[in-house]
Amino acid sequence: MIILFGVFVRYNEESDTHWVDYRKGNNITSDIENDFYFRYPSFQDVHVMIFVGFGFLMTFLKRYSFGAMGFNFLIAAFGIQWALLMQGWFHSLDYTDGKIKIGVENLINADFCVAGCLIAYGAVLGKVSPVQLLVMTLFGITLFAVEEYIILNVLHAKDAGGSMVIHTFGAYYGLSISWVLYRPSLDKSNHLNGSVYHSDVFAMIGTLFLWMFWPSFNSAIADHGDGQHRAAINTYLALASTVLTTVAISSLFEKTGKLDMVHIQNSTLAGGVAVGTAAEFMLSPYGSLIVGFFCGIISTMGYNHFSPFLEEKLKIQDTCGVHNLHAMPGVIGGIVGAISAAAATNTVYGDLGLENTFDFTGPFAKRVPTIQGGFQAAGLCVALCFGIGGGIFVGLVLKLPIWGDPADENCFDDEIYWEVRHS
Amino acid sequence: MIILFGVFVRYNEESDTHWVDYRKGNNITSDIENDFYFRYPSFQDVHVMIFVGFGFLMTFLKRYSFGAMGFNFLIAAFGIQWALLMQGWFHSLDYTDGKIKIGVENLINADFCVAGCLIAYGAVLGKVSPVQLLVMTLFGITLFAVEEYIILNVLHAKDAGGSMVIHTFGAYYGLSISWVLYRPSLDKSNHLNGSVYHSDVFAMIGTLFLWMFWPSFNSAIADHGDGQHRAAINTYLALASTVLTTVAISSLFEKTGKLDMVHIQNSTLAGGVAVGTAAEFMLSPYGSLIVGFFCGIISTMGYNHFSPFLEEKLKIQDTCGVHNLHAMPGVIGGIVGAISAAAATNTVYGDLGLENTFDFTGPFAKRVPTIQGGFQAAGLCVALCFGIGGGIFVGLVLKLPIWGDPADENCFDDEIYWEVRHS
Amino acid sequence: MIILFGVFVRYNEESDTHWVDYRKGNNITSDIENDFYFRYPSFQDVHVMIFVGFGFLMTFLKRYSFGAMGFNFLIAAFGIQWALLMQGWFHSLDYTDGKIKIGVENLINADFCVAGCLIAYGAVLGKVSPVQLLVMTLFGITLFAVEEYIILNVLHAKDAGGSMVIHTFGAYYGLSISWVLYRPSLDKSNHLNGSVYHSDVFAMIGTLFLWMFWPSFNSAIADHGDGQHRAAINTYLALASTVLTTVAISSLFEKTGKLDMVHIQNSTLAGGVAVGTAAEFMLSPYGSLIVGFFCGIISTMGYNHFSPFLEEKLKIQDTCGVHNLHAMPGVIGGIVGAISAAAATNTVYGDLGLENTFDFTGPFAKRVPTIQGGFQAAGLCVALCFGIGGGIFVGLVLKLPIWGDPADENCFDDEIYWEVRHS
Repeated sequence: MIILFGVFVRYNEESDTHWVDYRKGNNITSDIENDFYFRYPSFQDVHVMIFVGFGFLMTFLKRYSFGAMGFNFLIAAFGIQWALLMQGWFHSLDYTDGKIKIGVENLINADFCVAGCLIAYGAVLGKVSPVQLLVMTLFGITLFAVEEYIILNVLHAKDAGGSMVIHTFGAYYGLSISWVLYRPSLDKSNHLNGSVYHSDVFAMIGTLFLWMFWPSFNSAIADHGDGQHRAAINTYLALASTVLTTVAISSLFEKTGKLDMVHIQNSTLAGGVAVGTAAEFMLSPYGSLIVGFFCGIISTMGYNHFSPFLEEKLKIQDTCGVHNLHAMPGVIGGIVGAISAAAATNTVYGDLGLENTFDFTGPFAKRVPTIQGGFQAAGLCVALCFGIGGGIFVGLVLKLPIWGDPADENCFDDEIYWEVRHS
Repeated sequence: MIILFGVFVRYNEESDTHWVDYRKGNNITSDIENDFYFRYPSFQDVHVMIFVGFGFLMTFLKRYSFGAMGFNFLIAAFGIQWALLMQGWFHSLDYTDGKIKIGVENLINADFCVAGCLIAYGAVLGKVSPVQLLVMTLFGITLFAVEEYIILNVLHAKDAGGSMVIHTFGAYYGLSISWVLYRPSLDKSNHLNGSVYHSDVFAMIGTLFLWMFWPSFNSAIADHGDGQHRAAINTYLALASTVLTTVAISSLFEKTGKLDMVHIQNSTLAGGVAVGTAAEFMLSPYGSLIVGFFCGIISTMGYNHFSPFLEEKLKIQDTCGVHNLHAMPGVIGGIVGAISAAAATNTVYGDLGLENTFDFTGPFAKRVPTIQGGFQAAGLCVALCFGIGGGIFVGLVLKLPIWGDPADENCFDDEIYWEVRHS
Repeated sequence: MIILFGVFVRYNEESDTHWVDYRKGNNITSDIENDFYFRYPSFQDVHVMIFVGFGFLMTFLKRYSFGAMGFNFLIAAFGIQWALLMQGWFHSLDYTDGKIKIGVENLINADFCVAGCLIAYGAVLGKVSPVQLLVMTLFGITLFAVEEYIILNVLHAKDAGGSMVIHTFGAYYGLSISWVLYRPSLDKSNHLNGSVYHSDVFAMIGTLFLWMFWPSFNSAIADHGDGQHRAAINTYLALASTVLTTVAISSLFEKTGKLDMVHIQNSTLAGGVAVGTAAEFMLSPYGSLIVGFFCGIISTMGYNHFSPFLEEKLKIQDTCGVHNLHAMPGVIGGIVGAISAAAATNTVYGDLGLENTFDFTGPFAKRVPTIQGGFQAAGLCVALCFGIGGGIFVGLVLKLPIWGDPADENCFDDEIYWEVRHS
């Protein structure tokens, strides 16, 4: 890793000491216009989502909190390094000297890339070994970088919040791996596959930090100015709306009318996933509310009805329910993105605004919104294919009996990988 | 809600794709001058205070952590949507087309508005049903928007950190409701009305995030530039000072000389409340310390002496002690604001600075600091009247036997509203 | 304290209402160029590290969570006030009127100063009384301010992330105090000197917030523009690299191959410490990875091999292992800084860039990189001397039998200073 970084990675103009000359050459009047000040606060919010958000969200299991946080930490830290390289080759390579030039936007993209793998981790939580996780991350990041390149650069689809690139890909990648690694006797660990009172409170730390910082996630790499502004507003509204429908549906579908923490911890976030692609479009505030409204319903019902079906009929064991939180809302997000792109008009966006928002410049100068909608839909298909195909391939690799995965009766148990002190 | 948003809510110029034209029309040279970059980091801090800060602060009860976090989440998510509409009609209505134009400042204001209702929740924590909470929030937001309009626009009082508008109103609103809903047999739940070791640690998560981000709370909607800068410094100092007096008083008034977590969790925050109104004034660093110093004393003594008095004599059951944390410091904050506004001089502020700070422009161009002080005091009275009057009215509504509130022996217990897994 | 603030402390130009005139006088075109917008997001991240990061990192002991968080809160709140004064006299004194002029950079520096004392607290955690902590902080801040003045102003060494000024000083200060206060019968409290499952999860909250926000710590007071940008990137990379080596070494050195939470909680942070001094230099991405790589190894092995040696042979009882997390990585950071400063060339930095980065202006205009490297090394020695010398002196003061320290059998127990409710 160090050698690869030594050969390939350098600072970009805005993080290099030559910035002072670069500024003059580009008529930039103040240090505040360094990209750092546009993106660093959002970067830190995303960083919190990756390490605290995903990490704590998975602590809900009664005896797998160390593994949830610790392996999340491990694969995220490994993943961001590998992602800087892989994404760098595809996106930030300076062809004049063959070096990858990195700045704050690369750090955000590396965090995004890792998010895809952490989503996949959610599907196999408690059932794989740390070595398997590292292999899964190594392949996951690589597949992600290729898939992202195809969707964003070749197809020129827009996906600011990664509904397709991150959530759809990551969820189906994890679910496919879980399908290949199906454990028929997993019920031997059933006594550990659940929460206790305090572990549910810990998991809420993850939920809340994900929920709060999701507007930063969806706006982090949106266009400077109105793009970031609008993406944050749309996400804020979609999430607020999801919370209400989640609570309502959770209460309606329990016989006792009581609320279920599983829904509150997970389904409240579905709106943020689903508004990802369209966040920087002129989705309009009520559009965001509608997206959030339906995702809250679908995601909560998914936990009640679809997860048991997946496990019994399709033989997919999905520990955290990523199908309900990431897969379905991600696909919805891709569709919403395609429709709202196809429906974009000069009246709503303004001539310059339309060009800015969809980057109809350079080789794509002649593209119109309806065509863009088609390419958005194509992007969604690419994400699905990479997720399912890549997941099956990596699942087969992980099925080799060399990775030290836990026995069926030791799943969801920290004891086999951690020194646990008994008080 | 979706229909109302569809009819009324649109993006403002800075979050709309027409921003590129707007920029040119207003001689704005760089995207970085979009209001988003002035306010978004503060917004995210405020967001953390609302959802993690208030949510976890209330997890101190041994078996009401789900309710504390979960219902906090629910009413905050509901409240921000309703607040965007109510505040929008009063503050952000574009009279040319009858639409509310929203941007990041509206999101902050919606969070502020919700803060008032969450403070009120603190007074009734564990004693009401989720439906009652939603009704309380619906009325609370509405009252808040009217009260805020009168104080900030009609009286033209300044209240950057909301000592009057948020804390005084919210606390007396909640206390009045609690007074109307007085439960004489609440001691049947006494065994659950207390903390355990781990729940006190969880509550400290809330305390610390509130404490740390309070400078952002008080500076979030202050004037760009020196206004935000000064508000952050004043709050930082007041809070630091409060911690010291809280610890000292907590230790002095216990017979054993031991510290009480209730004080550390709550009274350490009183300085931030009390410096809210005056935060953007030239209160001077030692002025902030003095405010924090006295509030630490008053708030801690309130927990020891005033809370029992409230409960026994005035029949007000105040679960979280919002009277000590929000009501008294809020009133002090209003008074400090009135005095420091009345004492403002051209020497200290500079001619332009005085005009900027108090917005002595337009219809208020002739106002002088002494008059302004009077209007500040009037604002405090308005907040008190709305809080007490509104609280009594809403309390009577909530007394109707149709809302499914818990029986006296089921208070402070998650079991009646949540699926609780017993390990 | 209030009197001292009243006499000495005022707002600086950027937080004063005269800013509007100051702006005009300095050709600043927009409020966004107020230092507040360059530094406030980083300030808040640092603030979280100090109060939540350090506070929760120390909650790992099974019955000392109140003391860890509560006393951390107390001494940090006390320390920042005292630091504003002490650092103000040395750094921000306006000689025209004898006042200290404060702005957001002073708040960050006060937080940094407190970090040194909190590191020292880690070495004596559970073994001293709150009064002793306050005395330790009072002296610690004072020594820090003098040491910092000598290193940064007299020697003109650079230390953006404080490897020398904060970590080396703080760690040796604490270790020396712990050495003087050696308790031969500390094993009477052995049953409390350890963690339980949930306390380890709480400690991870501290670890993760420290880890995530460390890039802000190292970049908070770096130069505007590329300096802050580069410091954040270097720290991000060093930390990511440390996590991998920590996990690898932790697993290798346990006989069972299991991971130890102590390592994950602490050693993963060593890379951030070690890259502190050189963070704003052109260390290059792979340089950061190398630093992180070696620090992960050294720090983890320190917990396994060096800590027992320190306790048995050198009679230093180091509760949190600050020697492994702060002392060794801090010294390494100082050395890396000296080497990379000495190796700086015009080719890599550019003429203007070299001058900007090392501030070779004014009385230091003639200094060259090799000389700068020597002064950096001298700075490291100053930090060591102040830490060890100051620590021994303060340790002797604290040995006086007037401070109410706990008996050997009451160490690591909240009961003696806190009201603990037994459920």
